[in-house]
Amino acid sequence: MVYKVRSLITLTTDFGTSDEYAGVMKGVILSKNPEAKIIDITHEIEPFNVEQAAIVIERAYKYFPRNTVHIAVVDPGVGGKRKEIIVYAQGHFFVGPDNGIFSFPLKESKDVMVWEIERERLGIKEISSTFHGRDIFAPSAAILGLGNHPSEIGHPTREFVIIKELFPVERGEDIVGRVIYFDRFGNAVTNIPNSSVEEGVLEVMGRLLKFFNCYEEGEGVFAIKGSGGFVEISSKMEDVRKLLKIEKGCKVICQKRKR
Amino acid sequence: MVYKVRSLITLTTDFGTSDEYAGVMKGVILSKNPEAKIIDITHEIEPFNVEQAAIVIERAYKYFPRNTVHIAVVDPGVGGKRKEIIVYAQGHFFVGPDNGIFSFPLKESKDVMVWEIERERLGIKEISSTFHGRDIFAPSAAILGLGNHPSEIGHPTREFVIIKELFPVERGEDIVGRVIYFDRFGNAVTNIPNSSVEEGVLEVMGRLLKFFNCYEEGEGVFAIKGSGGFVEISSKMEDVRKLLKIEKGCKVICQKRKR
Amino acid sequence: MVYKVRSLITLTTDFGTSDEYAGVMKGVILSKNPEAKIIDITHEIEPFNVEQAAIVIERAYKYFPRNTVHIAVVDPGVGGKRKEIIVYAQGHFFVGPDNGIFSFPLKESKDVMVWEIERERLGIKEISSTFHGRDIFAPSAAILGLGNHPSEIGHPTREFVIIKELFPVERGEDIVGRVIYFDRFGNAVTNIPNSSVEEGVLEVMGRLLKFFNCYEEGEGVFAIKGSGGFVEISSKMEDVRKLLKIEKGCKVICQKRKR
Repeated sequence: MVYKVRSLITLTTDFGTSDEYAGVMKGVILSKNPEAKIIDITHEIEPFNVEQAAIVIERAYKYFPRNTVHIAVVDPGVGGKRKEIIVYAQGHFFVGPDNGIFSFPLKESKDVMVWEIERERLGIKEISSTFHGRDIFAPSAAILGLGNHPSEIGHPTREFVIIKELFPVERGEDIVGRVIYFDRFGNAVTNIPNSSVEEGVLEVMGRLLKFFNCYEEGEGVFAIKGSGGFVEISSKMEDVRKLLKIEKGCKVICQKRKR
Repeated sequence: MVYKVRSLITLTTDFGTSDEYAGVMKGVILSKNPEAKIIDITHEIEPFNVEQAAIVIERAYKYFPRNTVHIAVVDPGVGGKRKEIIVYAQGHFFVGPDNGIFSFPLKESKDVMVWEIERERLGIKEISSTFHGRDIFAPSAAILGLGNHPSEIGHPTREFVIIKELFPVERGEDIVGRVIYFDRFGNAVTNIPNSSVEEGVLEVMGRLLKFFNCYEEGEGVFAIKGSGGFVEISSKMEDVRKLLKIEKGCKVICQKRKR
Repeated sequence: MVYKVRSLITLTTDFGTSDEYAGVMKGVILSKNPEAKIIDITHEIEPFNVEQAAIVIERAYKYFPRNTVHIAVVDPGVGGKRKEIIVYAQGHFFVGPDNGIFSFPLKESKDVMVWEIERERLGIKEISSTFHGRDIFAPSAAILGLGNHPSEIGHPTREFVIIKELFPVERGEDIVGRVIYFDRFGNAVTNIPNSSVEEGVLEVMGRLLKFFNCYEEGEGVFAIKGSGGFVEISSKMEDVRKLLKIEKGCKVICQKRKR
């Protein structure tokens, strides 16, 4: 962990942009940390879809400088018993609810450290039971961004949630995953990492799809190693849902990479 | 009023984000004030819905540092006779059309000051009749953000619009308001301040709803003191419009707080 | 060309805001150029609609300070043979695919300079075949923003794409254009510059529409010299598509300006 000022903060939420929620979080951050630079990853995660948020964060965080603080708030359990945590993994900080939203950095990293946030150390007068993005996560990230150590506002913990179902499983020569969400262009994003598969064919809905290298070359519906690090089911300039009866959760089978 | 540089500027508009309108306002601000930090509250106010904008601004501005300049542009009367104003209230600046969009800070604040903007003092060559966000409000906010006193670009006025219908009325033991809009999660946001009601029951559409403390605990459709400072009608992870025939403008009755 | 640090960077894409794509581009820019100030023009260009992007950029860029770097990525040919270019025109830099997206500054400017980007000079380890916004355009803009000359990462070229169909044609006393897109408020934005027409009447779908000066004064469906520099077909607080059977591409005829 580098002890320097880390004032780059990203936001990933399901708050949408039609309300003031994301703006208010930024106001809270800038009130505590006027030099913070705040970047939206997205506020359009499907409401309460923690899995989508987890994979979007995984696809995004590596492109930011080390020591960036990534806030993620998709939080169906707000006001309930789930903890609020800070994660340090892969050189980045993550702040959010302990509901598996940080499953990827938590699972991938060997030297992961996790702290449970202690609300009373944040200096917030009143903490609502419905908007922890504003009352807990924004202040925590602002405080980290000022260069404070996580132990200033929390204590270490070894218990945290990883969503096992987010990870594909190996089955003989195959690797079996599923469709997590559809992106803006109608590509079906799976949870199968590019690095774990042999190009060749992908099986979905009883159909075999060929792998192509880019959209330009692809024909019909095809598989592609997506730019975000995961296998995608795609078609040239068309939503795959128009061409294939494919839904969120559909099983997807690839061939396991040969070493 | 503190005479220091105040370069934090927020935007609340009904411009949407599919056109260049919001981006252009930022270009104008940064051309005059390169150090400005610009935060979007939202650009997704329902087109021409001044009341929604008024309540969204009220829910947001207090979370920003003092001396923030809040631009709001929901402006069905653009090009007509309504004035353009600067408001100083509660330690914040507000810049926008004089159509009631700042009703809350104007009504709540005892020491409110208002200036009418004088267009010819903004240094803008050509002022369009359709885009005052770009030609009047953005330059005004940029100039304020540089530390200039409002009297540099306007003259004081004591006449300004407050939308009376935005405020609930007392009726015996009751306080009577209405639904102003629905947020991203399908919560119905009313104009009844949390601080004015006794928890207990809320009446809407002939039904009595119980108050709950958080979404986790709530059952069916329920009332909740919302994190934004106003009473909301909510349901756990469901749009209330799916469960209740409720619309914008519906009358809502709460019990007045006992002193 | 002014050789100074130019760290204001704008983004215009069809990536939407529900995925991490735009956020990732910002992460890449800030990794190379931590002081960059990044402004979204819009990410809601209709997928693959290069013409809409071209006109939106034209409507926006002039409101930013000179030396701003404008990235535009609407790129149906990504991974194919089209070049990646840097344009310097009208005192601004433009970075994107060579598919006509910069047709307006390229055609309007007399002293335009164009460079073809040389990928191997960007210092990027792996360049995907599907996300050049992240792997080529963001790094290029970040490098320009640090004050580097375009020749540091590319070589001059005199071949570049201009979409001829984007420009209206003169026909006797008339100027003939078409509807390019509809904005958030339901105004039909044409490709006919305000400066080239005589106010009077506009012909569309066999109907003659009068020009008005502002929305307040307009009646029914009318023509207006839009704030963005192009003639629009508009109606007071109503989507023109509700009042007129008008579509993208519809022919629009105005009277040519008399000198």
